[in-house]
Amino acid sequence: MNRRMVLNTVGHIILAEAALLLLPAIVSVIYMEKCLWAFLITIGIALSLGLLLKFTTKPDSKVIYAKEGFVIVTYAWLLMSAIGALPFVISGEIPHFIDAFFETVSGFTTTGASILTDVESMSHGILFWRSFTHWIGGMGVIVFVMAIIPNITDRSMNIMKAEVPGPTVGKLVPKARDTAKILYLIYIALTLVMIVMLLFGGMPLFDSIVHTFGTAGTGGFGIKSTSIGGYTPYCQWVITVFMLVFSVNFNIYYLVLLGKFKSVLKSTELWFFIGLVIISIAVITTNIRVSYTTFEETLRYSSFQVATIISTTGYATTNFNTWPGLSKAILFMLMFIGGCAGSTAGGLKNARVVMLLKTIHRELKRMVHPRSVRAISMEDKRVDEQTLSGVTSYFAIYAICIMGIFVIISFEPFGIETNLSATVACFNNVGPGFGAVGPNGSYAEYTYFTKVVLSLAMLLGRLEIFPLILGINPTLWKKR
Amino acid sequence: MNRRMVLNTVGHIILAEAALLLLPAIVSVIYMEKCLWAFLITIGIALSLGLLLKFTTKPDSKVIYAKEGFVIVTYAWLLMSAIGALPFVISGEIPHFIDAFFETVSGFTTTGASILTDVESMSHGILFWRSFTHWIGGMGVIVFVMAIIPNITDRSMNIMKAEVPGPTVGKLVPKARDTAKILYLIYIALTLVMIVMLLFGGMPLFDSIVHTFGTAGTGGFGIKSTSIGGYTPYCQWVITVFMLVFSVNFNIYYLVLLGKFKSVLKSTELWFFIGLVIISIAVITTNIRVSYTTFEETLRYSSFQVATIISTTGYATTNFNTWPGLSKAILFMLMFIGGCAGSTAGGLKNARVVMLLKTIHRELKRMVHPRSVRAISMEDKRVDEQTLSGVTSYFAIYAICIMGIFVIISFEPFGIETNLSATVACFNNVGPGFGAVGPNGSYAEYTYFTKVVLSLAMLLGRLEIFPLILGINPTLWKKR
Repeated sequence: MNRRMVLNTVGHIILAEAALLLLPAIVSVIYMEKCLWAFLITIGIALSLGLLLKFTTKPDSKVIYAKEGFVIVTYAWLLMSAIGALPFVISGEIPHFIDAFFETVSGFTTTGASILTDVESMSHGILFWRSFTHWIGGMGVIVFVMAIIPNITDRSMNIMKAEVPGPTVGKLVPKARDTAKILYLIYIALTLVMIVMLLFGGMPLFDSIVHTFGTAGTGGFGIKSTSIGGYTPYCQWVITVFMLVFSVNFNIYYLVLLGKFKSVLKSTELWFFIGLVIISIAVITTNIRVSYTTFEETLRYSSFQVATIISTTGYATTNFNTWPGLSKAILFMLMFIGGCAGSTAGGLKNARVVMLLKTIHRELKRMVHPRSVRAISMEDKRVDEQTLSGVTSYFAIYAICIMGIFVIISFEPFGIETNLSATVACFNNVGPGFGAVGPNGSYAEYTYFTKVVLSLAMLLGRLEIFPLILGINPTLWKKR
Repeated sequence: MNRRMVLNTVGHIILAEAALLLLPAIVSVIYMEKCLWAFLITIGIALSLGLLLKFTTKPDSKVIYAKEGFVIVTYAWLLMSAIGALPFVISGEIPHFIDAFFETVSGFTTTGASILTDVESMSHGILFWRSFTHWIGGMGVIVFVMAIIPNITDRSMNIMKAEVPGPTVGKLVPKARDTAKILYLIYIALTLVMIVMLLFGGMPLFDSIVHTFGTAGTGGFGIKSTSIGGYTPYCQWVITVFMLVFSVNFNIYYLVLLGKFKSVLKSTELWFFIGLVIISIAVITTNIRVSYTTFEETLRYSSFQVATIISTTGYATTNFNTWPGLSKAILFMLMFIGGCAGSTAGGLKNARVVMLLKTIHRELKRMVHPRSVRAISMEDKRVDEQTLSGVTSYFAIYAICIMGIFVIISFEPFGIETNLSATVACFNNVGPGFGAVGPNGSYAEYTYFTKVVLSLAMLLGRLEIFPLILGINPTLWKKR
């Protein structure tokens, strides 16, 4: 274990967070809010800690193996969330640290589950920071650090692997650092396009920026008690489309930029995702048709809710708790599936679901013809057995984690529907669930113990379980 | 596809059912009930159909491959259930065929989910047949046919594999037929011991027999509206112990008979099962302590409910719907795990859960040391990769089936708690769930459509998915 390298990298990440905190500080200057002090104090703390870590730990070697990657990701995310919670506490807008930690983890993991019951009373600076955490967490803060800081480490692919969601990380270009840069450039470009499109629809600048942050990171923190319900149909459609856009593997956009349309059309995951979205919207539109007056309204509500759940964003334009059972069940199922690998969305990821289905199909064939063993391919490329075994193991540990967390928080007096959907919504980084934690509810009523457990659930879901479990394993810390 | 052999074997199975129907006929003679006619007519129908199939389909070859095994099991179970439903319909005690079919499938699959709302008004003959289906389905009707009829087929292991639950069927002795015989002898011996022990506690003979059938098959059909709640604490303890006894791999009893105690102690699955039972009872006892007066009462209620759920029996001595959330969540989790492989219990089976945990553990190790690939062993024997891949694929298709069935029946107006637990309870062959389908409720309120869907869920769970999916696949019927 290269401890110095680990601490040094974590130091860089905390310094990056200090820099990112300047943005909400500027916002509070513009609005002349006293939460400015909260940001300045937090920046001071982050700066001192970051510099301390950076200068006391000159690493002998810059090599990062898989295990260092897990440890860096684990501690960086925990520390980042603890520091990110400080502005809420210091400003007094979320007085209890555990509430603030929950809210910050929910932000960075792009979950969007909130303990706030009156979001409209918060200051602009705090609301900006809250939504900005979505944007930072969406593409990954470590990927960000890699993209901006020259060569902090060799073999940085091992950190990227631990932070970027999905069964396989596509190296776009040979160097991990260049891949990170390309991903962030696409991310920033799409973000700017969306802000402009919302402004075009008459949404105020501040609202456009924070809602774009929430959409780009597929997070879902809003600034109104009605979430997106109060905005114009045009704005709702724009957000619907962009929630889906940010759930697609960013490699697809890179291929589009390179003009490789043939490769785009070959993407099994993309087609599966599109099919799933269309079928879900069709079924739900038919199912809820009677509750709304016009077809456009019905289609808008169903599309928005399908997009918000499958992208694991968590915005809402209506309270889907009151929808019929079939629509709720479809949304519940989509919570598990989530977006595509290599996007900012959470959930199992469509690529994993496709591989699971292919593995099942092969198993059925094998039972009839025991001697025929065929390789499974995705996008015309053979998937090696180790990746497949990784996917099926991931699915098993995923199910066990969800079950375990549900059992742990089940002492809460809200019933199976609320507790199970809270677990599923946090683990898959969706945000709102059903029952008391539905789109019109909040996580405020849960005990502090449960809030800590659900914060861990969000981190487990965002970092895809393995890095976190390995990262907190003390045997990894041993020096070789 | 050896069609003649398939039809011939199904014919034998229907003949066996005709013979087994003589028992409830005798019971209705003893109690002088008019449901006797219903049994005689059904026996007539089964006899004619069985003989027709047997004599019109002289097979050229007695060889049965894997695919013939799946087709035989699928059609035998469907036909058996359809014929087994007739006495209910003809006697008029369950007038609608779909209700009767649901009840019979629930019997044969040892689920114990019931559409009856007033079980105490039924005749003795009908109640006997209802519970007897549990006993027949527990060890498997095809295994029974193999044990009693000399050499109906070569390679009969392929049918046994399709019917006996669990990831691996332990061949106790080289010949499948002898294995079937040994299994049935152990089953009958344990059944007799239990009847005697219940009689010893003062339970009437009829009650002792039907409750033993329900326990031995881990089914759960009772004959009182309070299930087992009205019987003495002694009887409740006897049933608790035997529910657990019948959830253990029968190979263990064979090893005990042979005096191979060392091999018994090495069984990872057995230890895992015992540990799970003890921990669950301990947690639930602590959790519900305040609701009951004495410690014995608390322990009895918690042990009974843990045993009934983990063994997937479904008897009840109290309405666990009113228990606190933690206890309910543990019971909900146990529904998925179920008993051991090679027992009469349902669920995922402990052996599969252990293998999944070991696969996850290996995956974690592999992520840290990518080049080390270790084999996984169970009971000191190496598990080959194909079995492991079978287990993980099974888990994936299992989760997808449960999710799919939940979505299909979610138009029912009972909410997520009831609909999800109904799906889980039927699929894992438990019987009662939570909410409207809890221990004090029934499945009567569901539509006929949902009853058919849940019947298929029970069959999918009992036959462990693959045989049923392959058996109804028309391409398998092609002649080579």
